[in-house]
Amino acid sequence: MSSVTGNKLKVSIFGESHGKGIGVVIDGLPPGVELDLNFIDCQMKRRAPGQSSITTERKEKDSYTILSGLFKDKTTGTPLCALIQNEDTNSESYDKIKAKMRPGHSDYTGYVKYKGFNDYRGGGHFSGRLTAPLLFAGSVAMQILEIKNIFIGGRIKSIYNITDDSKPNLSEYEIKKLRNMNFPVICPGIKEEMLYTISKVKNEGNSVGGVIETYVINVPAGYGEPFFDSVESKISHIVFSIPAVKGIEFGTGFEITQFTGKETNDQFYVKNNKILTKTNNSGGILGGITNGMPIVFKTAVKPVSSIACTQNTVDISKMENTVLNVTGRHDPCIVPRAVPVVESAAALALLDLILERDGEIWI
Amino acid sequence: MSSVTGNKLKVSIFGESHGKGIGVVIDGLPPGVELDLNFIDCQMKRRAPGQSSITTERKEKDSYTILSGLFKDKTTGTPLCALIQNEDTNSESYDKIKAKMRPGHSDYTGYVKYKGFNDYRGGGHFSGRLTAPLLFAGSVAMQILEIKNIFIGGRIKSIYNITDDSKPNLSEYEIKKLRNMNFPVICPGIKEEMLYTISKVKNEGNSVGGVIETYVINVPAGYGEPFFDSVESKISHIVFSIPAVKGIEFGTGFEITQFTGKETNDQFYVKNNKILTKTNNSGGILGGITNGMPIVFKTAVKPVSSIACTQNTVDISKMENTVLNVTGRHDPCIVPRAVPVVESAAALALLDLILERDGEIWI
Amino acid sequence: MSSVTGNKLKVSIFGESHGKGIGVVIDGLPPGVELDLNFIDCQMKRRAPGQSSITTERKEKDSYTILSGLFKDKTTGTPLCALIQNEDTNSESYDKIKAKMRPGHSDYTGYVKYKGFNDYRGGGHFSGRLTAPLLFAGSVAMQILEIKNIFIGGRIKSIYNITDDSKPNLSEYEIKKLRNMNFPVICPGIKEEMLYTISKVKNEGNSVGGVIETYVINVPAGYGEPFFDSVESKISHIVFSIPAVKGIEFGTGFEITQFTGKETNDQFYVKNNKILTKTNNSGGILGGITNGMPIVFKTAVKPVSSIACTQNTVDISKMENTVLNVTGRHDPCIVPRAVPVVESAAALALLDLILERDGEIWI
Amino acid sequence: MSSVTGNKLKVSIFGESHGKGIGVVIDGLPPGVELDLNFIDCQMKRRAPGQSSITTERKEKDSYTILSGLFKDKTTGTPLCALIQNEDTNSESYDKIKAKMRPGHSDYTGYVKYKGFNDYRGGGHFSGRLTAPLLFAGSVAMQILEIKNIFIGGRIKSIYNITDDSKPNLSEYEIKKLRNMNFPVICPGIKEEMLYTISKVKNEGNSVGGVIETYVINVPAGYGEPFFDSVESKISHIVFSIPAVKGIEFGTGFEITQFTGKETNDQFYVKNNKILTKTNNSGGILGGITNGMPIVFKTAVKPVSSIACTQNTVDISKMENTVLNVTGRHDPCIVPRAVPVVESAAALALLDLILERDGEIWI
Repeated sequence: MSSVTGNKLKVSIFGESHGKGIGVVIDGLPPGVELDLNFIDCQMKRRAPGQSSITTERKEKDSYTILSGLFKDKTTGTPLCALIQNEDTNSESYDKIKAKMRPGHSDYTGYVKYKGFNDYRGGGHFSGRLTAPLLFAGSVAMQILEIKNIFIGGRIKSIYNITDDSKPNLSEYEIKKLRNMNFPVICPGIKEEMLYTISKVKNEGNSVGGVIETYVINVPAGYGEPFFDSVESKISHIVFSIPAVKGIEFGTGFEITQFTGKETNDQFYVKNNKILTKTNNSGGILGGITNGMPIVFKTAVKPVSSIACTQNTVDISKMENTVLNVTGRHDPCIVPRAVPVVESAAALALLDLILERDGEIWI
Repeated sequence: MSSVTGNKLKVSIFGESHGKGIGVVIDGLPPGVELDLNFIDCQMKRRAPGQSSITTERKEKDSYTILSGLFKDKTTGTPLCALIQNEDTNSESYDKIKAKMRPGHSDYTGYVKYKGFNDYRGGGHFSGRLTAPLLFAGSVAMQILEIKNIFIGGRIKSIYNITDDSKPNLSEYEIKKLRNMNFPVICPGIKEEMLYTISKVKNEGNSVGGVIETYVINVPAGYGEPFFDSVESKISHIVFSIPAVKGIEFGTGFEITQFTGKETNDQFYVKNNKILTKTNNSGGILGGITNGMPIVFKTAVKPVSSIACTQNTVDISKMENTVLNVTGRHDPCIVPRAVPVVESAAALALLDLILERDGEIWI
Repeated sequence: MSSVTGNKLKVSIFGESHGKGIGVVIDGLPPGVELDLNFIDCQMKRRAPGQSSITTERKEKDSYTILSGLFKDKTTGTPLCALIQNEDTNSESYDKIKAKMRPGHSDYTGYVKYKGFNDYRGGGHFSGRLTAPLLFAGSVAMQILEIKNIFIGGRIKSIYNITDDSKPNLSEYEIKKLRNMNFPVICPGIKEEMLYTISKVKNEGNSVGGVIETYVINVPAGYGEPFFDSVESKISHIVFSIPAVKGIEFGTGFEITQFTGKETNDQFYVKNNKILTKTNNSGGILGGITNGMPIVFKTAVKPVSSIACTQNTVDISKMENTVLNVTGRHDPCIVPRAVPVVESAAALALLDLILERDGEIWI
Repeated sequence: MSSVTGNKLKVSIFGESHGKGIGVVIDGLPPGVELDLNFIDCQMKRRAPGQSSITTERKEKDSYTILSGLFKDKTTGTPLCALIQNEDTNSESYDKIKAKMRPGHSDYTGYVKYKGFNDYRGGGHFSGRLTAPLLFAGSVAMQILEIKNIFIGGRIKSIYNITDDSKPNLSEYEIKKLRNMNFPVICPGIKEEMLYTISKVKNEGNSVGGVIETYVINVPAGYGEPFFDSVESKISHIVFSIPAVKGIEFGTGFEITQFTGKETNDQFYVKNNKILTKTNNSGGILGGITNGMPIVFKTAVKPVSSIACTQNTVDISKMENTVLNVTGRHDPCIVPRAVPVVESAAALALLDLILERDGEIWI
């Protein structure tokens, strides 16, 4: 499988950055769900460029048209297709540099995979712009999960060397609050610190990355599979489709290796006839299956590859060394815009597992 | 999908720890590959318990029978099934504690998912023992990859608070050398230090985890997909099926967020008509596709959940709090035995991508 | 899977008859194939209504826009999306009869499956109009197959009680000739006979069906799978998605049961270092795998369900018996328009099998 | 996919006729189903050879061992693996004729597909013997369907030129009665007529085929998909994996083309608050989705390819023409043994659709 993911909820993505349009087909949605398009717009806006001084100044109007699968404002249960048309862009500049492989980008690997036939303009199908349809699909999935009282939200855990060590209180209120922030952090004052760092690297033509922490609350115990569709497998599969993601960890993650079993084993207890764990080092997942505690995972986002300096690279048409100066306006840090995309990835993975277990008619 | 993974190379796993047997069906293997059963045995032995003082003293004879798909020592191209029969084990002890959910294990999540009908003896289908058929399948995949000059090997990067900071020279020789070590580390003397730590926690009835670093060399550029089957997606999907894995990162991984784009962008150059990068922060993958550099990833393995102390937990039959004392002999640290399992997961993911791109007859 | 089919070549279909548009996403196409849009137009035209006196007089402009996956007239290898926008149609009439389940149509089964939320206007997602994107995808597949010298064409074998017993000479020339006929038959004069029958039932407000025979020539031996993706399995899977199809048979099909093994066993012989069979009762497939002989199969298309008479049915909103008079202009016989759709189904099934075996880069 | 089929209920088949064993892994079964092994045995026996004078006199003991997925006589919800061990057979005879491609068999297509590496003894993976694990899986599925009051049974509709025109009364009683007959026909006396025909062709070293009609009753309306997993698509996909099947038709099938729409449109009516149709020309399926009426389909089984006469064929090692005399004891007619196999195929297809729609926990 390539552009299609999911077993029961199938998401099929298409488009190139400078083609006619990008979009997504979502198959397997339960029928009869009233879609809140405002919610989708809010999520889309969080990802869209041009939101603040630290994002690219390009204006992309990510307005979508729903072509199918929605009737009288409700899902029909048949495939829902959303199309985001691309605006006319001046693509000529790309022809001049098309043979120069931009370091950190997919120019070279895309060239090899597609034998040079892929659309190289603006990254083509590899463009970060393709996260817009992914986010659209995720926003639909999030709404359906919320009917089941499941809420997903994320925050910026760190940017470069600045870390927000505050811990959220994982409630519906807190998660919605994070989603309403265009720069979702918890510790007061840390936003300014992070923005300052980003501005600084921006002025230097440099870039930075960071870590996103994502939360999913109120997932009942029992979703996921031991082999091979563990909750971690499903989430990581989609998250690693997001450009720039280089790592994922669940619960205490890599840090758990710094502790002993006695320190990190999550002990069970009963409260109000519900089974809970005192700690949540496992991030809500045991043996690949949800245990009813919040799902918590962190995602590492690398520094943006487009940097304003002379870089060594190759000219693939001549197979010789050359240098490249990328011009244009680029995000110095993609982390804030990636937060809702990671939320979407988690929503798609979980809704798929839920639909598989509970069936297609559960509303 | 649950017990089946892969698009072109399909791996279907089955069995419970105390049932009649465990095994695997591998479908989509190219025909005509002469299997080296010695190599499989070596890999199986690395995972098997009872290898050293720090692993469980239980003796499992992981001897397998190949039931199909092999004819005159060569793969036929039809499904290859390998069966590992379980020996008679005394399973009665499990009945007494079956209602007590062991912390850190899948007893509770398995109970909920399977409505209490799953085989609870020794973890049942969730047992770490199920990694034996996974490893078998991976060992077959590794051999086929080696025909294409692709080699996979891993090493223990850290155990608890002890880290091996040495870097391997990523050659076929080095990788094979690591595979021949039952405790694969690079820095001289660090093995003893790690073993001492493990013995210490063992004596305390405690456990520790660690980090595994895995290498894949000589994968040509061009394998993998932008959406949704990136190399990272494929590898992480299988790796997260291995019990106890809580994190995965590619190349510089989470640490890359501590650097700027200028510091971490891997610049290209041409050498002997081959395109290489000076650094390999991306871990051999750009835009989800191999770039020809070594694939490098790290896996976090949590401390073993079976610890010799009184733990709080619940009795699920009564829905009340209780305490649990797990007895029996358990590994204080599963990391060394997990190294070849992670290698196998990588092999299965990569061979699937290669067969998808290159077709089924390429020998 | 529902709206997505294929393993390596994935086709994802979407849309409703009276929604904004219908379309298809094709994933897994080999890169670098120059698409002949004229060929696609010709095939689309064969399916389009309004072609002759015997088809519905509605004029649908099935003009498509390729939104992605095509760059400088060649496939990129990334998902190709084609959109057919629906024109403004007066859909109000459907509201009045929406509770009356049309016999032979999917109104009732769609109502139950989608809990009444599906778009009922003009059949919605069940509309025969959805065969337009299927045909688009098939036309792309046919072109790629022709690069490999594989040609697909079909003919009307029978309409109602009139059968064309002539046998085609299965050459590229003959197949192309059939494809260029808007009413593809072989026996001279039989077209007029069939058209007369269709006109007659049309005037009576009645409808008829027929049998389509489809040919695929020059498929080399060795494609397909014993279990479970036999060539017959793959072709029938897609063909049975075409509305009105009720049967499929390969080679001599059901008639083979009227003969003995001695009469029907296809004996092999060598000619010009090629293995052939003297007869082709197997329809080019043995054990689910192509044997190099032409693939031949027949498809039964039922009479159109929209007939101009009073029919008994139910009002689902009241769960009571009622009568229905369907008005409007309908095809009295869909068989001629279905011929290229069945060709497309065969093309998609075969290209998928070929890409799976030969890999994605074979041009 | 090849040896694996199904979306939610995955069936993975393995083995060769003369290898160590054949078997099946069934994944996605609901947990807690008490399996009636007697029922499985009865179904297995219907397929087994040596049941009567007209089947092969070889005695195959198709006794299976359930290796996993069953605990305390109930399904666990984890993969259920059943193994049928092959007995020691004298396979030497096959070496002498291995280069001679048996007409009508898969020797040639298998040779090409697997590059000559497949196990040629007794048909290897192509052997009709592989229907035993398929039947095992189907027998498990049938039991689960019966919990939902869904019953499946089949009958011999015709053998060679003898047709049983009687129509069954589609009740649970009638279906079970058919399943209890080793030669299931309805018309009194027709069994003797058919057996006489079979004996006659047997004495001539010849073979015949026939048509099987299969019934599924009490499937509620609403299961199946418009694109691409129609009930017809799902059933035909598995049925066409059964060796010797060359055609399938639903409801009135090909014959429906001999009638007009007015004659064949199934009109709806309400009875006891249930929607029914007066006729069932559609075979219980409209738009790919069940309509609550009995599912009825016919399957064409070709004459057995092993015939006792001199046949022309090729020697593939020399690429030259030769003649072949197949010796040994073979079934002159496989139809009676194929009846329960087709039932199994239908059961697997339907249970998969039901589990997809209703979820995995519905008992």
